[in-house]
Amino acid sequence: MSASAPATGVFCLGISTLDYVYSVETLPTRGEKYRSRGLAVVGGGCAGNASVAIARLGGRCWLATRLADDLTGDQIVGDLVREGVDMDFARRVAGLRSPVSAILVDAQGERMIISYSDPEVPEDTHWLPPVLPDGANAVLADTRWGEGALAALRLAREAGVPGVLDGDRKPPHPDLVATASHVAFSAQALAELSGEADPRGGLARLGQRASTWLAVTLGKEGVLFIENGEVVHTPAFTVETVDTLGAGDVWHGAFALALAEGQAERAAIRFASAAAAIKCTRFGGRSGAPKRDEVMQFLANVG
Amino acid sequence: MSASAPATGVFCLGISTLDYVYSVETLPTRGEKYRSRGLAVVGGGCAGNASVAIARLGGRCWLATRLADDLTGDQIVGDLVREGVDMDFARRVAGLRSPVSAILVDAQGERMIISYSDPEVPEDTHWLPPVLPDGANAVLADTRWGEGALAALRLAREAGVPGVLDGDRKPPHPDLVATASHVAFSAQALAELSGEADPRGGLARLGQRASTWLAVTLGKEGVLFIENGEVVHTPAFTVETVDTLGAGDVWHGAFALALAEGQAERAAIRFASAAAAIKCTRFGGRSGAPKRDEVMQFLANVG
Repeated sequence: MSASAPATGVFCLGISTLDYVYSVETLPTRGEKYRSRGLAVVGGGCAGNASVAIARLGGRCWLATRLADDLTGDQIVGDLVREGVDMDFARRVAGLRSPVSAILVDAQGERMIISYSDPEVPEDTHWLPPVLPDGANAVLADTRWGEGALAALRLAREAGVPGVLDGDRKPPHPDLVATASHVAFSAQALAELSGEADPRGGLARLGQRASTWLAVTLGKEGVLFIENGEVVHTPAFTVETVDTLGAGDVWHGAFALALAEGQAERAAIRFASAAAAIKCTRFGGRSGAPKRDEVMQFLANVG
Repeated sequence: MSASAPATGVFCLGISTLDYVYSVETLPTRGEKYRSRGLAVVGGGCAGNASVAIARLGGRCWLATRLADDLTGDQIVGDLVREGVDMDFARRVAGLRSPVSAILVDAQGERMIISYSDPEVPEDTHWLPPVLPDGANAVLADTRWGEGALAALRLAREAGVPGVLDGDRKPPHPDLVATASHVAFSAQALAELSGEADPRGGLARLGQRASTWLAVTLGKEGVLFIENGEVVHTPAFTVETVDTLGAGDVWHGAFALALAEGQAERAAIRFASAAAAIKCTRFGGRSGAPKRDEVMQFLANVG
């Protein structure tokens, strides 16, 4: 990428939230009262976090997301704009409540997430652009808005660019996996979809009937993906983990940006895994997403 | 109370929060992701809830509480003012974060509370009034601000009016129980303080060395209190419980108001238990606190 060329980028679609992150000694297990000594109020959500990662990595990023016209929505948009994300495709719906989450993080960095989305938020996609914006050389969609994800992945197909589905949850629409060019599942979603508890077996089973490139991200266990009909394993980089919150979303954002830039899948996995590893070494959810030079330095150091 | 006389009231001191109440199918037990289909953002906190109960029961109410000068604090104050609570003694501290809680309520009405208070909120009490406001014929303090509770209970002593401590948690200052004229513990706080798991035994043990009137509130198991050296049990009213959130706080507010009005303890318990019982039949935390005519009607019906 030359310095003078306009940056290539990713059209993202999905959820952006305001997260209330409570530090607790131990995660709650019973219907009692628990005290928190630390609170961070930060933007979050799969697509919101991935967008920030893309912007920090030097990519252009547009985020299509459904918000209410409330104070929470103002905070979500303001934060993303400050990060350099183009929010022209944020839809603000009157009279609803914007998505918020309560996230509890214990002393060991383990986290529990309770996410609220307004059930009244409209499914319709008529307000999405008819074609991808200039410079959007990939699409990334999450599973939180099925109709929207399908529309965005179709825009990618029509434009002939990669369309990545973040399969964090079981896809809410039956055509999503086939419409995407690339799907990266979570272990939980893959198990639900394939009916196999073992991610390797589940991936192999789905690979038999899909022409889409398929992977499953396993956190510190690395990534499994299918290449020439075989399940291939890539280990994660070993780092001192402080906070995994948002690391998966950073991975998806970096992976989609790498594909948008024309990197092959193996190189994109390496780039994304480095970005996610760096994030894990820093507290504060997506505020720990790295810049591109940090990723390049990290990759140079691991050799 | 004649219609023309100014209402008698309670000077309250303690915590007021903004609660994010998430409806969930089941309470979370592991470090995973949970979805919430319903969210209510409502004022809360022991003293805040008790203040609303007092105002709705027709009492005057002043609330001394420590908040930050943030948007959350604005929402907390605005909500209490709308309920008729005098917020002249709210202290707004610059640069801090106002108290917020995440409350998870499952399909059976069981709840889990994670409460955040800024650890930097100042302990000093110099900004409290030197004497109780005119018409404040009782004090109610919670355990969330030890120095403040002690100062407020001393004001009650100096004025010769009841000083009620809501012993929801183990009192944070050793002089609190002796300075109060009345303490109503939760079962958990009583067990911690007395070293006895059984509330009857714990209350009897504390009663041997305290001149303060002592009780323990046990939810649907009613109230235990000490009268003439004996532990006496009052059963709770039987109602169809929908939501217990804030019911204990409503009890404390109603109990303090009844004492302010000159009711004896047994009558005050009956009044408070009716108010709390009605609250339990209504969803939405303190928004279910009853008005006085509802309590009088309820008590007339149970005979």
